[in-house]
Amino acid sequence: MRSGEMAKLTQLIDNEVFRAYATYTTIVLLKMMLMSLITAYFRITRKAFVNPEDTASFGKGESAKKYLRTDPDVERVRRGHLNDLENIVPFLGIGLLYALTGPELSTALLHFRIFAGARIVHTFAYLIPLPQPGRGLSWAVGYAVTISMAYKVLKTAMYL
Amino acid sequence: MRSGEMAKLTQLIDNEVFRAYATYTTIVLLKMMLMSLITAYFRITRKAFVNPEDTASFGKGESAKKYLRTDPDVERVRRGHLNDLENIVPFLGIGLLYALTGPELSTALLHFRIFAGARIVHTFAYLIPLPQPGRGLSWAVGYAVTISMAYKVLKTAMYL
Amino acid sequence: MRSGEMAKLTQLIDNEVFRAYATYTTIVLLKMMLMSLITAYFRITRKAFVNPEDTASFGKGESAKKYLRTDPDVERVRRGHLNDLENIVPFLGIGLLYALTGPELSTALLHFRIFAGARIVHTFAYLIPLPQPGRGLSWAVGYAVTISMAYKVLKTAMYL
Repeated sequence: MRSGEMAKLTQLIDNEVFRAYATYTTIVLLKMMLMSLITAYFRITRKAFVNPEDTASFGKGESAKKYLRTDPDVERVRRGHLNDLENIVPFLGIGLLYALTGPELSTALLHFRIFAGARIVHTFAYLIPLPQPGRGLSWAVGYAVTISMAYKVLKTAMYL
Repeated sequence: MRSGEMAKLTQLIDNEVFRAYATYTTIVLLKMMLMSLITAYFRITRKAFVNPEDTASFGKGESAKKYLRTDPDVERVRRGHLNDLENIVPFLGIGLLYALTGPELSTALLHFRIFAGARIVHTFAYLIPLPQPGRGLSWAVGYAVTISMAYKVLKTAMYL
Repeated sequence: MRSGEMAKLTQLIDNEVFRAYATYTTIVLLKMMLMSLITAYFRITRKAFVNPEDTASFGKGESAKKYLRTDPDVERVRRGHLNDLENIVPFLGIGLLYALTGPELSTALLHFRIFAGARIVHTFAYLIPLPQPGRGLSWAVGYAVTISMAYKVLKTAMYL
């Protein structure tokens, strides 16, 4: 790699708004990845699998087949995981573009922190579960933050 | 934030191809986010929920339990939402890389506009629903645009 | 487009680490898109559809309704597709940020190659299917690579 280019790239990641974006995006993506482990944990402890090859260690035939079933806890984590995908993907894309529009550092941090906090609260609200409107509100807060960043992107960069 | 870096970032978002990418990506991500609201609308109007805590406002016990059910309209929106994820995620990633390969502005705009148009038509085709092959064709058009951009990325930047 | 900006963008895509990221990201996203075609293939050959309008070519009424059903092969591909989304989205985001932290080219290539290989093995393990722990291990390898990149991003760029 030529060192001049390396320097240019490093400059991007040295930018404080971009570093904040990198930090909070990595945090929410790691949080989303955690859902896979929680799903696996519930599948194993509840003995609720979906693929026949996953129950082979429980023996053959009917004895293993009874573990091919759905479990409310497993399904709940999976819904939380899908909700993460539906909301974190827009944050990933719109947040990147927003960070490149050159917002004030404090404004950008406010957006990123509220979004990450809202998604973490949403996960707890889904998994405990908290009574509504706990989950609904945490979802709406993350949604509103993404809309606010999208507005800034379109206002700054719109080119139809 | 140091102003030199800010300037560099602003230069990226000042690039017309990148601005076009930012605009159309934001539009399709907002369109995808709209699916959440449509799902919520159908869940509430059809009274079809999946989490017990979401039906608590309808009373306790059996009277609320009957609203824990699937509804064809809700499921239809959810399938459209998942199809968006499956197709807009590749556009998000491959489109960004494509924008950085330095395509002609007119060619890039053609790709982005057709993709965004195809996904909007796909949503209408799914929700109305239009007779096939309306939905299939709109899906295929967006798919082909993404393949075309992927080809440009690999031709320009391939480094295995 | 001003040619000075074009040059700056081209510099990013000329960077070897970034080109490697672009190449492997495009490969795994194309692989994920392939799941849509495999789903369509199984839906058509197994005659297992989910939308009434998709079965209209088989006639009207009861004769077409029997094709509105789930099929184990179709569901298997769909689970593989969703697993791709859950794992490739974090790679897309964290990998981009990782590429911008200026890692050694050889280290970056190692991460990207192992991730892409793991996801391709995962797909074969899911679709054939291979006995466990084939699928589980290939999933875990891709997961570990993403965690490793996330660690580098946070170590280099953390700004809370």
